[in-house]
Amino acid sequence: MAVSKEADTLRALYQSWTDQMVANPGLTIANLRSMFDEWHQPALEPENVTYKSEIVGGVEAIWALPVGADAKKVIVYTHGGGFAVGSADSHRKMAGHLAKALGVTSVILHYRRAPEHPFPAQIEDAVAAYKALLGKGYQAGNILTAGDSAGGNLAIGSVLKMRDLGLPLPGAVIAYSPWLDMAMRGATLTTNAATDALVGKPILEAMAGMFLGGTDALNPLANPLENDFVGFPPLYITCGGAETLQSDSETLYAKAKAAGVKTALSVVPGMQHVFPALSGRAPEADGELARIAAWYRAL
Amino acid sequence: MAVSKEADTLRALYQSWTDQMVANPGLTIANLRSMFDEWHQPALEPENVTYKSEIVGGVEAIWALPVGADAKKVIVYTHGGGFAVGSADSHRKMAGHLAKALGVTSVILHYRRAPEHPFPAQIEDAVAAYKALLGKGYQAGNILTAGDSAGGNLAIGSVLKMRDLGLPLPGAVIAYSPWLDMAMRGATLTTNAATDALVGKPILEAMAGMFLGGTDALNPLANPLENDFVGFPPLYITCGGAETLQSDSETLYAKAKAAGVKTALSVVPGMQHVFPALSGRAPEADGELARIAAWYRAL
Repeated sequence: MAVSKEADTLRALYQSWTDQMVANPGLTIANLRSMFDEWHQPALEPENVTYKSEIVGGVEAIWALPVGADAKKVIVYTHGGGFAVGSADSHRKMAGHLAKALGVTSVILHYRRAPEHPFPAQIEDAVAAYKALLGKGYQAGNILTAGDSAGGNLAIGSVLKMRDLGLPLPGAVIAYSPWLDMAMRGATLTTNAATDALVGKPILEAMAGMFLGGTDALNPLANPLENDFVGFPPLYITCGGAETLQSDSETLYAKAKAAGVKTALSVVPGMQHVFPALSGRAPEADGELARIAAWYRAL
Repeated sequence: MAVSKEADTLRALYQSWTDQMVANPGLTIANLRSMFDEWHQPALEPENVTYKSEIVGGVEAIWALPVGADAKKVIVYTHGGGFAVGSADSHRKMAGHLAKALGVTSVILHYRRAPEHPFPAQIEDAVAAYKALLGKGYQAGNILTAGDSAGGNLAIGSVLKMRDLGLPLPGAVIAYSPWLDMAMRGATLTTNAATDALVGKPILEAMAGMFLGGTDALNPLANPLENDFVGFPPLYITCGGAETLQSDSETLYAKAKAAGVKTALSVVPGMQHVFPALSGRAPEADGELARIAAWYRAL
């Protein structure tokens, strides 16, 4: 499937990471965190967005504040990186583009990472930030959760946890290429193995190991595909048609739809994992942002 | 010399880089570029600054646009990293803080890096961006050059090159911990070796080798200490009292002053190399920004 020349930037970045990991199996977690922070590179700077560093609910965070955005509305953004790498910085531009497209603000969380902090530290941080926003006077319905890859898992898992806690739920949830099944059962793990430049079973198994510690891979908060979605907020899911985690998005969509959740799924042919990392650069990413914005405004 | 707790963030980051380079001498230039891009971490996000990705004079760049800044004035910012590592991204926040303190905009250059592109590619890129700004209608006197470490060298060397070319010169030059002497003759290379957590002769020799290629270490555009400063614009120099490159700042100050240049030097006790990397976090950095702003406004 042909993608734009600009979209190939992301595939090339992923291939360079894969090549570096193959060439040097001794890269430390510090080396890997440095490398994955390059995730910010494919996105261009979203224009007319300011930022602010702040601790929110005990969690280090960056606010993305698009000029003219509705300050009463906020996305709690959880970055990807297998729960172990990636950062608020690597996803600042990506979240800034999403906030701008939706006309809202975003708080991008530097949640605690594995392996130093295994499950459920990440969900605890996301819930703590959410509760802090409620405490600041945000209406639950004006809060969204969003995230990509492992952060897409958290954007969903944190809401399942809020439901368990009896908290008022966010108004919407947006997941980019969520990584959900810690038991790695998706068919596209095999069928898209040749086209995905980054994600394969070995890297997922390494990251699931760090995240889960001793937790079961079928724990319904670590693995949202093992949970039920009754009462879940409106959910938008997008993923690429070249990626090994496509099945996770499709299974989530089917599960949420069966539970009566207002759900949308967009699979963009040929695109890599977390292709909105190309926001501002590639038409495929900007087209997806426009679709998400239209969906959100129609809620 | 005691520094603030916040300032220790930079020393700790440098020490972590040094430790990683010692532990793994096989780190590739790609690994090192990933690692040095963490240079952005100590600075907090400057509030009320927006950004824009743009090609300027053929050079990839990020604009930092503080809300309310004088859009007629612009800093051409050249990042540090031994001409080989570092990026516009690693220095976005640092340059954003400087622009905001001065009430101007900044264009942060992703200039071509060594060893793929040795001297004088970096100076050519800085001059090309400057000429593009003149072409867009900026008055030379409303342009500043600024940079840190190797980028401080470029902020100065590019102006020496502009003078050679007969171009109208920028209104002011600001250098954070400039690395100037490619022949490594500074006394503090020895006397501050024990307190500088990052910079020592071996890393400088490696980087000078990549930058110079076959060029002589005393070439007056690669080594501004070998140039003359007649007609040079007002020059502000700051460095830390714990760093091995302190001598380069002091020698530059003496040379420029002897040539009749309006020159200021601020050596902040106990501080590491490029301590304005702590902008927004440490009082030492923010105090320096306030001094630079007062100096600039009084020109």
